[in-house]
Amino acid sequence: MRATYMFGAGDVRVVDAPDPTIQQPTDALVRVTRACVCGSDLHPYHQMPPTEGGSPMGHEFIGVVEATGAEVATLVPGDFVIAPFAVSCGVCEFCRAGLQTSCVNGGFWSDAVLGTAGGQAEAVRVPLADGTLVKVPGITDSTDDPLLASLLSLSDVYGTGWHAAVKGGVKTGSTVTVIGDGAVGLLAVLSAKQLGAERIVLMGRHEARTDLGLELGATDVVAERGAEGIAAVRDLTAGGSPIVLEAVGHMPAYEQAVGIVRPGGVISRVGVPQYEDAPVGFGSLFGPNITLTGGPAPVRAYIEQLLPAVLDGSVQPGKVFDLGLSLEDTPKAYAAMDAREALKVVVSPW
Amino acid sequence: MRATYMFGAGDVRVVDAPDPTIQQPTDALVRVTRACVCGSDLHPYHQMPPTEGGSPMGHEFIGVVEATGAEVATLVPGDFVIAPFAVSCGVCEFCRAGLQTSCVNGGFWSDAVLGTAGGQAEAVRVPLADGTLVKVPGITDSTDDPLLASLLSLSDVYGTGWHAAVKGGVKTGSTVTVIGDGAVGLLAVLSAKQLGAERIVLMGRHEARTDLGLELGATDVVAERGAEGIAAVRDLTAGGSPIVLEAVGHMPAYEQAVGIVRPGGVISRVGVPQYEDAPVGFGSLFGPNITLTGGPAPVRAYIEQLLPAVLDGSVQPGKVFDLGLSLEDTPKAYAAMDAREALKVVVSPW
Repeated sequence: MRATYMFGAGDVRVVDAPDPTIQQPTDALVRVTRACVCGSDLHPYHQMPPTEGGSPMGHEFIGVVEATGAEVATLVPGDFVIAPFAVSCGVCEFCRAGLQTSCVNGGFWSDAVLGTAGGQAEAVRVPLADGTLVKVPGITDSTDDPLLASLLSLSDVYGTGWHAAVKGGVKTGSTVTVIGDGAVGLLAVLSAKQLGAERIVLMGRHEARTDLGLELGATDVVAERGAEGIAAVRDLTAGGSPIVLEAVGHMPAYEQAVGIVRPGGVISRVGVPQYEDAPVGFGSLFGPNITLTGGPAPVRAYIEQLLPAVLDGSVQPGKVFDLGLSLEDTPKAYAAMDAREALKVVVSPW
Repeated sequence: MRATYMFGAGDVRVVDAPDPTIQQPTDALVRVTRACVCGSDLHPYHQMPPTEGGSPMGHEFIGVVEATGAEVATLVPGDFVIAPFAVSCGVCEFCRAGLQTSCVNGGFWSDAVLGTAGGQAEAVRVPLADGTLVKVPGITDSTDDPLLASLLSLSDVYGTGWHAAVKGGVKTGSTVTVIGDGAVGLLAVLSAKQLGAERIVLMGRHEARTDLGLELGATDVVAERGAEGIAAVRDLTAGGSPIVLEAVGHMPAYEQAVGIVRPGGVISRVGVPQYEDAPVGFGSLFGPNITLTGGPAPVRAYIEQLLPAVLDGSVQPGKVFDLGLSLEDTPKAYAAMDAREALKVVVSPW
């Protein structure tokens, strides 16, 4: 089959790879209908040292079950499925608690320990298929593109935005500020809106993206950054935002969050931190009793809840995909996202 | 009057100071019945540069109202009151939300902006008296010592331990680990017990203190620190403690908290951080979805709730006071606490 591999920074290629096979009785084989490139894929795209064998890429995909191992109980060939960005068993303490990203038996795509490959390919072996995959009745390869895109967003970015809002404690009437106008930030806006937020300030400076943010529920846009951005948000929120959703992951975004959060408030992070140490002492989090929360979203926990509104079209998270390419053009998808010519790229294997 | 001042590291003296007077119509004058020395008073005791004028000391006291300003509506001379460690107006947004430590009109004792002095003295001017002070009917100077000690604990350490447990989300059946066997740590144990925790692991290595911790509700004691302490708690809790209450404030205690917390868990800090930056990235808080919360306790918000069980004797938080001295001996109180010969010292002005 054809599959996307990264061989080093800036070096993404679509190559011939072995067809995946059932290796464990709990495996399923999934033929990919749509995959995509993640903002977090751009980190190795900037930093990865050259390697000869390359790494298989992609952790977001939807597709059709082609075969199942002997112990797979809930799926049969032909089922349409969403694959979350984490593999999870569904039965351990953490899976039962809705924290599938901490599954004691699972892991991630392109994971050496699990032996998983990536979703930017024609097909994928899915370990722990009963726990990992979510079946969606009534969907096929020929379902219309906007709906497929919205289903694809449930594999990561929509569930991640939702996690930010849930961990931030957004509820009816909340005032929320979202830092970042990438796909996750925009879907954090949508999620905050769905959870009843009344005021949603979106911090971002790419007008096409913040316009989409306004469409998805933002009430205000702040394009400034740094001290000016902090002053603008503090002014809009009369002294600070009780809930801040941080969807970037770089230190300036963390500093922005600390600068705009209201005493007693919450900073909920879902942007993968590109730092380890950060200010948390008396002058930042402790003095004003700020709560810092968030982490990798257990999107598996949210799919069933978010699916109905996606299926009936009342929300359209797939709007964050603004470019579609074929699998053979996946390297162009990385380049377009890196150059910020595309917000998020959907990849079709045909 | 006589009052305690610190003139530099290790240099505490009881000196003649001007009698306090009513300066604002919202002030009250309180004659001190009992005061005490706080673990946090030991930070300047170690670090304060020498000064000629000295700083008035003490932020925990109980006493009797002697006079009130014209606008004080809820207190009259003769009322017995508890003074929380923060001055608060009672009417601003943060006071109404129970976050009096962020009061926009208030502040702290020994505060230049508010013009406040300290509680380790014969009398104190209390600004914003209606908001700050809590009246306790039926108490006088001659109430017995154990009850006065428990009432005094409500001015800081009991409410601070309670804040740790509340922000940690302790509820019926919780498994909790408390880091630190100082007065706050021990009262965090008591608070966790009151909130229904089933398993309470106390990390501390001073046997007399951990014995008191067992009396107050701890089910296990871990004396080891560092990697050994982490291994011991992870073993006792089958993989990590869902709730960690950090009552120390030094970096090793933070690292201990990160090492023992369970994925998806909470670290609630009430020990005043002696650091500004700390690990919060993928390898510490973010990856396992850990929540970091806490801060200076709004003890004012908790006093009414905690008072009945103190008054009827069903809890005795005053047990953390293991030494009583007269005001003239306050310097000895600092020395005894610094040498760990005393856990917490109650000071009587006579």
